[in-house]
Amino acid sequence: MKITDMRPERPAEAGDFQAWMGGIQTRMETVLARLLPAAHVAPTKLHEAMRYATLEGGKRVRPLLAFAAGEVAAAARERVEIVAAAVEMIHAYSLVHDDMPCMDDDVLRRGKPTVHVEYDEATALLVGDALQSLAFQILCENKIADDASRQLEMAKMLAAAAGSRGMAGGQCIDLEATGKALTLPELEFMHIPKTGALIRAAVLLGCSCGASLSEAEKARLDRYAKSVGLAFQVVDDVLDYDASTATLGKTAGKDSRQGKPTYVSAMGAARAKAFAEELRQGAHAALAGFGAEALRLRQLADFVVLRKF
Amino acid sequence: MKITDMRPERPAEAGDFQAWMGGIQTRMETVLARLLPAAHVAPTKLHEAMRYATLEGGKRVRPLLAFAAGEVAAAARERVEIVAAAVEMIHAYSLVHDDMPCMDDDVLRRGKPTVHVEYDEATALLVGDALQSLAFQILCENKIADDASRQLEMAKMLAAAAGSRGMAGGQCIDLEATGKALTLPELEFMHIPKTGALIRAAVLLGCSCGASLSEAEKARLDRYAKSVGLAFQVVDDVLDYDASTATLGKTAGKDSRQGKPTYVSAMGAARAKAFAEELRQGAHAALAGFGAEALRLRQLADFVVLRKF
Repeated sequence: MKITDMRPERPAEAGDFQAWMGGIQTRMETVLARLLPAAHVAPTKLHEAMRYATLEGGKRVRPLLAFAAGEVAAAARERVEIVAAAVEMIHAYSLVHDDMPCMDDDVLRRGKPTVHVEYDEATALLVGDALQSLAFQILCENKIADDASRQLEMAKMLAAAAGSRGMAGGQCIDLEATGKALTLPELEFMHIPKTGALIRAAVLLGCSCGASLSEAEKARLDRYAKSVGLAFQVVDDVLDYDASTATLGKTAGKDSRQGKPTYVSAMGAARAKAFAEELRQGAHAALAGFGAEALRLRQLADFVVLRKF
Repeated sequence: MKITDMRPERPAEAGDFQAWMGGIQTRMETVLARLLPAAHVAPTKLHEAMRYATLEGGKRVRPLLAFAAGEVAAAARERVEIVAAAVEMIHAYSLVHDDMPCMDDDVLRRGKPTVHVEYDEATALLVGDALQSLAFQILCENKIADDASRQLEMAKMLAAAAGSRGMAGGQCIDLEATGKALTLPELEFMHIPKTGALIRAAVLLGCSCGASLSEAEKARLDRYAKSVGLAFQVVDDVLDYDASTATLGKTAGKDSRQGKPTYVSAMGAARAKAFAEELRQGAHAALAGFGAEALRLRQLADFVVLRKF
């Protein structure tokens, strides 16, 4: 894809970022509501709980990244919404399992009781399990790429990002790190799989729905995704440190109370904020070779880092 | 595939069923050991526990069914072993999660401490999650069908079998049924997804690795798989009722103590055994149109029903 000659079609478009974001968020609500089994279909308790865990929740950062990356490859939105939904289901399942008593033992998520509190632990376990299956099912049964081989590659990418060398593995490292003081490289070793892998998958799956990119372009998007993924975690740590329960919608300050190593505990809040800013600039630098088609990716890097500071 | 003219190549072959079964079981141990991340790869605790949960365990009934179904379509064993491993990983993950305290709370499985006892609950949760991801990863990254579209279909089939309208959904119905007296149709409604869906997937995925079968042939295999799947559960219920902890290698008699409805509680042990025998005959009847290439499927129907009576 040749992109160097492209210029923004609408120079004022940067100003409509909030509208763009709101549009994607609304669309994702509809898409997820359609892709999740209806609450009246048996087993109704499980399906109701799956919808509770996934709908009306969160900023949909990963879907936003998938749509933004899709613009770089001029991907059809009907395809991007499927990969965005699959990534979001994996994310939702991980939250349900992470909140369980044997993991982070959290009772509040996005301002609502967590799934095991609203239902029960067994249901929470099954909700997570079934959401993961559903993510792969929708990736395989909807047309999301020009050819089936690429689609297999995409499903494999999501599986690897979710698995033991991705998200689930990062969560394991996180649990083992509780009560320890980690160095910055150790923190990175934990967070690159824990949150970074799925954010990277969102970006790479979004652009895979569209025209083929060159290896160099994919490498740039990969670099962008790594910066944004890490920035996301650094900012989360700062927010957890700063925010009150009321504004964050989850039990705040919990990481430090549980003795979890964070970027704030490792380098202090001020340096952590500066590090997030560095990562934001790194994300922009990675996109330097792209034109206006990467506008949303740039705006999202800003949004991730500046959202609450 | 034309099969009506085929005759057994070796008339004495029925006698070598034990050898055939042992060969597949040994092969699956090697295949699973190769496909699972090595225990020395980080995160080592998770990878070690994933191997603990999957290796050296069980009769490998689902892989045996996949290999037997593969013979009907003359499938390459290098393909069948991948789908067999994927199905077995889904099965292994479901055992790990089902054994957890919030579900069946079991401490013994295949004669060994269950994963949450040997490690801890958080690790057991992540082991199950990561095994599910790995199952889809290996299905997508290895060549298991002549074309990628069929392979996508196969991955979708496993996802549907594992999900909320398959295994995970059946488990939810099972939990809700505890303490209730179920009718036979209600028991079937629970067990067809709970154990039947994955057994059906093993059969259909095994034959999908090979030559295309006609719709009629696929329908026959589907009927076979449903009979064997249900028979498997009926026999399990009888074994749970009959067997001592020593011979079964798991805590026996537990279902009735936990107030779980079983085929024994619904119809008595003698009638449950007769029902299993009916299902075995139904499985044979479904295969009537096949020749010697379905020998292993027939033998497995016998094995599933007669294994411990």
